[in-house]
Amino acid sequence: MLLNIVNGNTTAAMTKTIAAAAAKAARADTTIRAVSSAFGPASIEGAYDDAFAVPGVLERIREGEAEGADAHVIACFDDTGLDAARALAAAPVVGIGEAGFHLASLLAHRFAVVTTLSRSVPVLENNLLRYGLDRRCAAVRATDVSVLELDNPASNARARIAGEIARALEDDRAEAIVLGCAGMADLASSLSSEFGVPVIDGVAAAVVLAEGLAAIGLKTSKRGGYARPIAKDYSGLFAPFSPRA
Amino acid sequence: MLLNIVNGNTTAAMTKTIAAAAAKAARADTTIRAVSSAFGPASIEGAYDDAFAVPGVLERIREGEAEGADAHVIACFDDTGLDAARALAAAPVVGIGEAGFHLASLLAHRFAVVTTLSRSVPVLENNLLRYGLDRRCAAVRATDVSVLELDNPASNARARIAGEIARALEDDRAEAIVLGCAGMADLASSLSSEFGVPVIDGVAAAVVLAEGLAAIGLKTSKRGGYARPIAKDYSGLFAPFSPRA
Amino acid sequence: MLLNIVNGNTTAAMTKTIAAAAAKAARADTTIRAVSSAFGPASIEGAYDDAFAVPGVLERIREGEAEGADAHVIACFDDTGLDAARALAAAPVVGIGEAGFHLASLLAHRFAVVTTLSRSVPVLENNLLRYGLDRRCAAVRATDVSVLELDNPASNARARIAGEIARALEDDRAEAIVLGCAGMADLASSLSSEFGVPVIDGVAAAVVLAEGLAAIGLKTSKRGGYARPIAKDYSGLFAPFSPRA
Amino acid sequence: MLLNIVNGNTTAAMTKTIAAAAAKAARADTTIRAVSSAFGPASIEGAYDDAFAVPGVLERIREGEAEGADAHVIACFDDTGLDAARALAAAPVVGIGEAGFHLASLLAHRFAVVTTLSRSVPVLENNLLRYGLDRRCAAVRATDVSVLELDNPASNARARIAGEIARALEDDRAEAIVLGCAGMADLASSLSSEFGVPVIDGVAAAVVLAEGLAAIGLKTSKRGGYARPIAKDYSGLFAPFSPRA
Amino acid sequence: MLLNIVNGNTTAAMTKTIAAAAAKAARADTTIRAVSSAFGPASIEGAYDDAFAVPGVLERIREGEAEGADAHVIACFDDTGLDAARALAAAPVVGIGEAGFHLASLLAHRFAVVTTLSRSVPVLENNLLRYGLDRRCAAVRATDVSVLELDNPASNARARIAGEIARALEDDRAEAIVLGCAGMADLASSLSSEFGVPVIDGVAAAVVLAEGLAAIGLKTSKRGGYARPIAKDYSGLFAPFSPRA
Amino acid sequence: MLLNIVNGNTTAAMTKTIAAAAAKAARADTTIRAVSSAFGPASIEGAYDDAFAVPGVLERIREGEAEGADAHVIACFDDTGLDAARALAAAPVVGIGEAGFHLASLLAHRFAVVTTLSRSVPVLENNLLRYGLDRRCAAVRATDVSVLELDNPASNARARIAGEIARALEDDRAEAIVLGCAGMADLASSLSSEFGVPVIDGVAAAVVLAEGLAAIGLKTSKRGGYARPIAKDYSGLFAPFSPRA
Repeated sequence: MLLNIVNGNTTAAMTKTIAAAAAKAARADTTIRAVSSAFGPASIEGAYDDAFAVPGVLERIREGEAEGADAHVIACFDDTGLDAARALAAAPVVGIGEAGFHLASLLAHRFAVVTTLSRSVPVLENNLLRYGLDRRCAAVRATDVSVLELDNPASNARARIAGEIARALEDDRAEAIVLGCAGMADLASSLSSEFGVPVIDGVAAAVVLAEGLAAIGLKTSKRGGYARPIAKDYSGLFAPFSPRA
Repeated sequence: MLLNIVNGNTTAAMTKTIAAAAAKAARADTTIRAVSSAFGPASIEGAYDDAFAVPGVLERIREGEAEGADAHVIACFDDTGLDAARALAAAPVVGIGEAGFHLASLLAHRFAVVTTLSRSVPVLENNLLRYGLDRRCAAVRATDVSVLELDNPASNARARIAGEIARALEDDRAEAIVLGCAGMADLASSLSSEFGVPVIDGVAAAVVLAEGLAAIGLKTSKRGGYARPIAKDYSGLFAPFSPRA
Repeated sequence: MLLNIVNGNTTAAMTKTIAAAAAKAARADTTIRAVSSAFGPASIEGAYDDAFAVPGVLERIREGEAEGADAHVIACFDDTGLDAARALAAAPVVGIGEAGFHLASLLAHRFAVVTTLSRSVPVLENNLLRYGLDRRCAAVRATDVSVLELDNPASNARARIAGEIARALEDDRAEAIVLGCAGMADLASSLSSEFGVPVIDGVAAAVVLAEGLAAIGLKTSKRGGYARPIAKDYSGLFAPFSPRA
Repeated sequence: MLLNIVNGNTTAAMTKTIAAAAAKAARADTTIRAVSSAFGPASIEGAYDDAFAVPGVLERIREGEAEGADAHVIACFDDTGLDAARALAAAPVVGIGEAGFHLASLLAHRFAVVTTLSRSVPVLENNLLRYGLDRRCAAVRATDVSVLELDNPASNARARIAGEIARALEDDRAEAIVLGCAGMADLASSLSSEFGVPVIDGVAAAVVLAEGLAAIGLKTSKRGGYARPIAKDYSGLFAPFSPRA
Repeated sequence: MLLNIVNGNTTAAMTKTIAAAAAKAARADTTIRAVSSAFGPASIEGAYDDAFAVPGVLERIREGEAEGADAHVIACFDDTGLDAARALAAAPVVGIGEAGFHLASLLAHRFAVVTTLSRSVPVLENNLLRYGLDRRCAAVRATDVSVLELDNPASNARARIAGEIARALEDDRAEAIVLGCAGMADLASSLSSEFGVPVIDGVAAAVVLAEGLAAIGLKTSKRGGYARPIAKDYSGLFAPFSPRA
Repeated sequence: MLLNIVNGNTTAAMTKTIAAAAAKAARADTTIRAVSSAFGPASIEGAYDDAFAVPGVLERIREGEAEGADAHVIACFDDTGLDAARALAAAPVVGIGEAGFHLASLLAHRFAVVTTLSRSVPVLENNLLRYGLDRRCAAVRATDVSVLELDNPASNARARIAGEIARALEDDRAEAIVLGCAGMADLASSLSSEFGVPVIDGVAAAVVLAEGLAAIGLKTSKRGGYARPIAKDYSGLFAPFSPRA
C-alpha cells in the first residue's frame, strides 16, 4: 500500500527523522512517500505557525491523493490541518497527535504528553478535548526545548525530556508517555527502556493506524463535517487551491 | 476607538451587511474599519474553506494593528483563525461565534444556534466545547441554506431559519437563539420580535465585547498559547507572512 | 444609559470602591446608580451570608427597574441572587463573577481566580460549573484575607493577593487572573503591570458587558428559568416582596 | 431520633402531605417535627420564589437545632437553601431533590425527573450538575401542573404526571423515575405499580438518608464551604438572623 | 429486616471486621447475614482479582435472595460484581464504595478517598466516573498498605492512612474522607476525631443505605441494564450458575 | 505474528464468524488463533453474563500467552474482562468494542453504535464513558435482536439493524456506524455500501489495532491499574487461576 506522510513543516532534516520512524513501523509491503510541507514555517511552534502550515500540508495531501495514496499521515503533533485534509482526501487521514493519544489509551489508564514549548500546550489540550481523550490524559508537559533544537546534541534535549517523563510518572501518576513532537521519534525506544513504561512515538502510531484503516477498507465519512469541499473560486494567492466539483 | 472588523470571506456584499450591523451596534465614537478577507474563499462552508480563509484574515488583522486598532473582530461565525489572530495582535480579538455564545449564556439557561450548512455544525460544536459553553447550548441546527443564498430573496432563507428557531424552542427547550452566520445579521431583530425570545447576532455581540475589552484596557494574555509568534522564515508563498521579532 | 449597580453587601465603603471602578469603566454617557444592598450582611463570606444578601439585592434591582435602568450589575463576586434578579427584571442583569470569567476566557486559554476566604471557593466553583467555564479555570485560590480587611492597609492584603497570583501563574499555568471580590477592584491595574498578564476586575467587566447588552437591545429571555415570577402572596416578613401580575 | 423536616413553603396542606410521607418512611423510634417555612412564598415556582423561601427555611433549621434535631430534611425539591442550612446546622441536612437523585442512581443506570413547571427545570438541572448526577439523569420533564394544583382533583395532575412518565420511559430510556415535587409524595407507590419501575418520592428518600447519616454519626464537614457562619451584624429586616459566635 | 452482607474476598478475619462495623451501624431490628465470598481471592487487589471475586460474590447474593434478604451489601470497596448482582437480585443491592461516595457528597463539597494499593486507584476512578461523582472527588490516594496488612499492627497501616488524609486535606482541599477498603472500617471514628472532618466507612454507609432503600420499598429497576438474566446454559465450571427463567 | 482472538462466549458458530472476519482483516503473515471462551455463557447479554464470561476469556488469554501470542483480541463487544486481561498478559490486549469506537472517531465527528439488546446499552455507555469517547458517540441503539438470532435468517436481523442505522443517520446526525456485536461482523461491508457511510466491524478494527501495537513493540503499561496480579491463593473453583509470581 502507498502511505503519504506529510511533515507539517518544511525542514528536510525532520522529514528524514519522520521517514526513518515511519519506515521502521510500516509493513514490509508499504511504500512510504515522506514529504515536507510544500511551503510555510520551518517549525510549528504555536497557533500562528499552525495557521500558515495548513495550506502547504493540504497541497501535499492533494498530491498524495493524485498519486493514489491508500492513507495519509499528518506528521505534526498539533494534527495541523487534520479536519481540512479529511474533507479533501478520499483516503483516510491520521494525525500523529491523535494516533499517540489513542494508542496510549489502549495501554494505560492514564497517560501524559511530553512536548516542546509551553505555547503548544493549549493546542494539544484543545485537541485532547475534541478527541474526547482529555479525561485519559494526566498532563501535557512542556520541556521548553524548541522543535529544531531536538536535533542539536548541545541542547540537552533528551535529558530535559527524561526529566519531564520522570515528573509525569511521579507527580501525575501517568502510566504511559506520548512524545509530543515528530522530532522526538527516535527517542521513544530508549526512553521506554529507561523508564519501564510505554513511550509512544506518534509517527509510528499513526503509521500503523493509517495502514490498519486502509487494510480494512475504512475511509473518512463524507457525511457531515468531512463532506467534500463545495466547488468555488478562491481569490488571490489561493486561487490554485479552489475546490473543484 | 478604532475597531477592525474582518469578514472571514472575500464577498463584498457580506462585508457590507457586517459593516451595517457593526455600525448599528457600535458606540458613537467608535470608528469601524470593516474589510473583507485579503484573499481566499468567497464563502466559508466547512473546514477546508476555513483553512484557506485564515491567512487572508490574519493579513487584515496585521493591517488593523498597523493602523492602530483598539480591538479586532473576526466576522466569521466559525471564529476562523481566532487563536492565530490572538497570537499576532497586541489589541484584543473577538470572534462573532464566541461573542454570540457568551452573550446568550448571560440571557438564558439554554440557547440554540441556527446556522447554514450541516457541514459547519461540527466546527461550531468543537468551538462550543473549547469555549466551555457546549453545556449551555441545547443544539446547533442547520438550515441548509448556503452562505451566499442568505442574501437571495428566492432562497426562502428567512422562512427556513424561522422554522429551525421554532423547532429549537419547542424540541430543544432553547430559551434564546444565536444566529450562526454573519450573513444573518439583519434578521436578528425581526426574528426576536416574532418569537419573543432573544435572537442574537454575533456581529453586534462581538462589537460590544470588543469595545468593552478595549474600554477597560484588557488585552490578550501573552503568556502561554497566545504568546507572540517566534521570529522565523516561512518559505514559498508564505514568505511575506514570516513572523519578525 | 442608566446602569443600576448593586453592591451585594451593606458596607458603604465597598459601594464607594465599586462606584469608582464602575465610573472608570463606563461610557461617557452612562449614568451610574451605585447602591449598597437594602439590608442584610455587611460582607458576604460563604453560603449563609449569601442567603441573607439576596432579598436586599433584589429590592435594589426592583428600585432600579422602577427608575428605568437599562441594565443591572450585581456587584458581589458570588453572583448572589443572579437567577432571581433575572426573573424579576425586564432589563438584562450581569454578575461581576460571571463577567470576570467570561472576559478572561476571551483573553487566555486558562485563567485563575484569586479570592478572599476558603469558604467562598466552593461557591465560585459551583458558579463556574453552571456557567460552563470550569474547564477554562485552572484554579480558584483563596488568600484568606477577609472581605473587609481588603481596605485595611495593615492587612497586607495586596501582598497576599500577589502571592496567590504568582502561584497561579507558576503552579496552575494560568495565563490570566480574575480578582475574586468587588473589594479588590482598585488593585487590578497595578497587579496586571506587576505580573504582565491580564488581571481582571469583575466590576469593570460587568459594566462593559451590561452596557453592551443594553446597547444592542438584548434582554433576559422570559422563556424557561427566567420567566417573570408568578403572582402570589408571600407571608410574614416577605409580604412586601410578593410578586404581582 | 429527632428529625426536623422543613417544608420549603408556607402551605399547611403540603406540610401535611410531607409529614404523612415522612412518617410512613421513618423508623419506628424516629420523632418527626414537620413544619412549614416560617415565612415567605406559599409555593416555590422558580428562582425568585426560591430566593424568598430560604430565610424562612433557615429559621426552621435554627429552631430544629435548638430542639436537638439529629438531622434535618429540606422538603422542597429545589433543595432550597441547602448550602446555607449546612453551614448553619451541626446536624446533617438532606434535601429531598438530592435524596431522590442519589437513591435513583443506586437503582437504575438512567433515571428521569418528572416535575411541575417548566421554569423549575433549569433549577433542577443546575442542581443535578452540581451534585454530579446530571450524567445519570436522562431528562427533567415538566408537567406544567402548578404546585398547589397537585392537591386539586380537578387538575388532572396524576394523569399528566403519568403521561410524562410514559414518555420518559419510552423516549428517554429512563429506567427509574424521581417525582420532582414534595406535593407528589402520595403518588409514588401507585405510579410505581402502574409502570413497573421504581418511582421515587424525595421525601421518603430524604428521611432514610437523614436517619442513616445520623445513625452512624456523620455530620456535615465544617472545613471549607460549609464552615460555620462568621459572626457579624446583619442590618434591617435581617438583624435577627445575624450569625453569632 | 434481613441484610445480606457479602465480603468480596474469602478472608474470614475481614468478614468479621465487616460484620462488626455493620452491626454497629444497623437498626436494632435488622438481622445481619455477613458472609465471605463463596470462593476466589483472599484479597482483592486490582482488576484480575476483581474478575475472580465476582462469581463467588454472586453465589452469596443468590443464597441471600433464597433466604429472603431485604437488601444486599457488597462489602468490597471496588463494588465488585455490583451490576451483575443487581441483575440477579430482586432486593436492592448497595456497594460499599458507592455508598461512601454518595454519603460523602451529602456532607462536603469535595471529598477524597484514601485506599490501599495504587493498582486499585484506576478501578475506583472508573467507578467514580460511572456514578457521576468524579467531579466531587478531589483525589483517590493510595497508601500502598496491602489489604491483609491492615490488620497487622506491625504494618503501621494507621499512620500511613493518617498521612494520606493529612495530605488530602491540605493539598487536595478535601473536606471529607472516604476510607477506601472494607478492612479500614474500624478506623473511621478515631480518624474523624483526629482530623476534625467526616471520615466515612463504606460498610456503615452501605448498611444505612441498604436499610433505607428496603424500608421505603425501593428495588432495582428491571428495565434496561439490570433486567433479570435471560435463561440460558452456561458451560463447564459455570454450569451451576446458568440463569433460569 | 501470532494473534490470539478470544470469542467472549462459547458458541462455535460465532467463533467461526469472528475467525473469518479476522482472517480477512489480518496481515498476510499473521497467524490467527481464534478460540471460543473456555467455559461460561453461550452468548453475552447483559452484566450477569459478562461476569461469568470473564474467567473463561482469561483462561484463553493465558493459553495465548503460553503459545507466544504477540497480541490478544477480546472478541466480545462489551470488552468483557479487558482490564483483567491487560493485567494478566505481557502482550497488548484490544477489545472489539473499544477498537470500533477508536477507529470510528478517526473517520467521523460523531458515530453511533447499533447493538443487540437494550440491556447491553448501559454496558456500552459505561465503556464509552471510561474510554472518553462518549462525547463522540451520538447514540447507542438497540435492535432487540438477540445475539444468537443474528445468524438466523428468519430473525430479520439485517433489516432491523438497517432500520436503526437509518435512524442514527437521520435522528442522531451520526456520520459513521459501529456494529455493536461480534456476530454482526459479516454485515459491515454491505451496510456500508447501502448507507454510504463507514460501517465498522469491531473484529476487523481490533485485528488491525492489535497488529499495529505489536508491530511497533508497544505493550500494556505495568505501572498502575494493569500491574501484574500479585501472587496469592484463590480458593475453591478458582484455585487453578491463582496468580503466581
